[in-house]
Amino acid sequence: MRLSRYFLPVLKENPADAQIVSHRLMLRAGMIKQSAAGIYSWLPLGYKVLKNIENIVHEEQAKAGHIAMQMPTIQSADLWRESGRYDAFGDEMLRIKDRHDRDMLFTPTAEELITDIFRGAVNSYKDLPLTMYQIQWKFRDERRPRFGVMRGREFYMKDGYNFDLTKEDALHAYNRHLVSYLRTYERMGLQAIPMRADSGAMGGDDTHEFLVLAETGESEVFYDSAVTDLTFGDREIDYDSVEDCAAIMTEFTTKYARTDETHDEALFNEVPEERRRTARGIEVGQIFYFGTKYSESMNATVQGPDGKPALVHMGSHGIGVSRLLGAIIEASHDEKGIIWPEGVTPFHVGIVNLKQGDDEADAACQSLYDAITALGLEPLYDDRNERAGGKFATMDLIGLPWRITVGPRGLKNGVVELTSRKTGESEEMPPEQAVARIAAIYQS
Amino acid sequence: MRLSRYFLPVLKENPADAQIVSHRLMLRAGMIKQSAAGIYSWLPLGYKVLKNIENIVHEEQAKAGHIAMQMPTIQSADLWRESGRYDAFGDEMLRIKDRHDRDMLFTPTAEELITDIFRGAVNSYKDLPLTMYQIQWKFRDERRPRFGVMRGREFYMKDGYNFDLTKEDALHAYNRHLVSYLRTYERMGLQAIPMRADSGAMGGDDTHEFLVLAETGESEVFYDSAVTDLTFGDREIDYDSVEDCAAIMTEFTTKYARTDETHDEALFNEVPEERRRTARGIEVGQIFYFGTKYSESMNATVQGPDGKPALVHMGSHGIGVSRLLGAIIEASHDEKGIIWPEGVTPFHVGIVNLKQGDDEADAACQSLYDAITALGLEPLYDDRNERAGGKFATMDLIGLPWRITVGPRGLKNGVVELTSRKTGESEEMPPEQAVARIAAIYQS
Repeated sequence: MRLSRYFLPVLKENPADAQIVSHRLMLRAGMIKQSAAGIYSWLPLGYKVLKNIENIVHEEQAKAGHIAMQMPTIQSADLWRESGRYDAFGDEMLRIKDRHDRDMLFTPTAEELITDIFRGAVNSYKDLPLTMYQIQWKFRDERRPRFGVMRGREFYMKDGYNFDLTKEDALHAYNRHLVSYLRTYERMGLQAIPMRADSGAMGGDDTHEFLVLAETGESEVFYDSAVTDLTFGDREIDYDSVEDCAAIMTEFTTKYARTDETHDEALFNEVPEERRRTARGIEVGQIFYFGTKYSESMNATVQGPDGKPALVHMGSHGIGVSRLLGAIIEASHDEKGIIWPEGVTPFHVGIVNLKQGDDEADAACQSLYDAITALGLEPLYDDRNERAGGKFATMDLIGLPWRITVGPRGLKNGVVELTSRKTGESEEMPPEQAVARIAAIYQS
Repeated sequence: MRLSRYFLPVLKENPADAQIVSHRLMLRAGMIKQSAAGIYSWLPLGYKVLKNIENIVHEEQAKAGHIAMQMPTIQSADLWRESGRYDAFGDEMLRIKDRHDRDMLFTPTAEELITDIFRGAVNSYKDLPLTMYQIQWKFRDERRPRFGVMRGREFYMKDGYNFDLTKEDALHAYNRHLVSYLRTYERMGLQAIPMRADSGAMGGDDTHEFLVLAETGESEVFYDSAVTDLTFGDREIDYDSVEDCAAIMTEFTTKYARTDETHDEALFNEVPEERRRTARGIEVGQIFYFGTKYSESMNATVQGPDGKPALVHMGSHGIGVSRLLGAIIEASHDEKGIIWPEGVTPFHVGIVNLKQGDDEADAACQSLYDAITALGLEPLYDDRNERAGGKFATMDLIGLPWRITVGPRGLKNGVVELTSRKTGESEEMPPEQAVARIAAIYQS
């Protein structure tokens, strides 16, 4: 993309009403624009990152054998009355009357509808296990939306639902989700720690939240510092293996890590003192096993191996897709702006032309642009007639991990400059070598 | 995907309330499920096709230089009051009050919001031309939703908006959209004919609708049969060239083709009689040029080359993404079910195992599955313990363009059977040759 043809309305000033750094930087980098309290438009740069995150979620869900579908945003109130949650949900549910005066709502989550789909189509235990998920816009009418996309009213969420014959099978689904979520977050450059949490309004026995440590986190968390040494890395996993998934669950959830809701001071004190940590965390996902809560209230049964009807065991599993942009920025920025992890960056590399209009510099930039595009990567070429200082400031603000700087002086010596956004280190090299370096960095 | 692990709730019976064939087939093939009047869940098979169509739209918009972003579904009523459309839209607008009793709505289209984004960020003619678009869920509270996804209430739409300094520039944007839409529909295996239409509630001077001819179409259309001979094909086009885009516009819109709203009997009678056609059509897209209608009411100006403020010229351009599934099926089916064009098919090829549990047949199917997957294609392998007849009926119903049938008898002779869904013709060949044929068919 050439910047002269893009829509990137960066702001020079810090927006007055943005309290946390991710909100400020998303506004300043022209990623989002508020249209109403807690409701945002995703401008082109923000939209690209949102889609990158969505794609990673889809890819990891597919690997785990979970099936993508999509439910509508507007639902009838009837199913919610059946489960008993229509009244229970309170003012956070956006309630709507349609032109025929029927009670509708903008869905905040979809246990009811997916259970209805399931019970209408699946009759036998032979069709289990089944896990379906969607990535879809949700609405929660927060009383006081704040922190940009971190606590908006309209938000983009992955919500998945498993249906299993037995508790044991459902706990395997639970573990499978934990594993797939660990991989998902790591691909985004995030460490998200599974912590024992409270099931709250969802009901259910087992639940873990995934928290990214950050000063601006809404939750207070308590953990054994050894949990931050755990990484999933590039291990291969057989998602069908109950043992393999359970082993990962054990590895990642045995050490103490809890939110304030479930914090247990006595247990925490058993952690060696030098490893006890208190911090703040941003919740970026949650997994639940809630047994037969919904299958009972909504009568979702299958014929079991014994020929008798059996209530299915269920769980639900969420990733805050739009919220993740905020969480990633909270975890990865400096005073100049965002620092995108390579897995989610909106453009793979920035090209800065120090002297737009200089024939040699223009040609060199164009040839870098073409070579990088030919690799299947997307460069953002700042081809505007601006001073170098302004171009650097924009690139630093929007946070592309790599920048190639091209100027007449360097070209005389046959070199361009490759700069890491993270370390700030620059290295001169021939253009072809810069392209090769970029290719190697993004080779997956 | 193995069918035993998929969620494909096909129906044997024709649903009683579905009046048109696409609605019937989408329900029977387990692609959608109604959750409320005119509101559908997209089950896995339907969701896959929806995403394929969405991807084609994105790819063609990118080629035309249009920039993707996304606006929220819920908007404040304020902007709609500013443009004067809050009252004008009538009962089709889903109006909502949030918990603080503010007037909100589920957006049916987004001229107001995109114009607000534009005027808040763009100040100079130097930042033009600019075209941004989104693919997002919309809601129109139809009095009588019907025909499945063809006239639903919640629907998925691509809506694009161009901002230009002059009428001439805006008409180039109009032509550019026409060209990109022609390519888009052809990639989906559809002939969509641009017809002069009425601008209706959108206002504006110029507008074309794209119509797919089908008996079940809602609009009556009149055309010179010569328009059905026009195809865009694989021509290369320079979207920046005003002349090239205008030439395509002329080529595709000069011959008589109009909806009943703009039909002119006298003009129609100038078409040679043997080429005059009356038929029905399904609208799958529309392009508008409406000049300064919104920029005036919302005061969207840029500084012109003369230093004075100039109202921008705008247009908007829509593709009915969810509706296209219905249109494609209306145009491509037989008495057995859907016949997907290769460009949008949910799976590239079906594999039918005639004797599940037979070691040789199972191994041959698995090796076909692996070979096709290795090509980057997606097979659907019917690995259920069902009779051949049931498996064939399911494959015919869901409409995959190609099927490979594997059975012990064929394998003894070293062959499998490759069958075209469209022609019904089968050919025996060694498994490797079937894989090579599939590879060649989908090579792009």
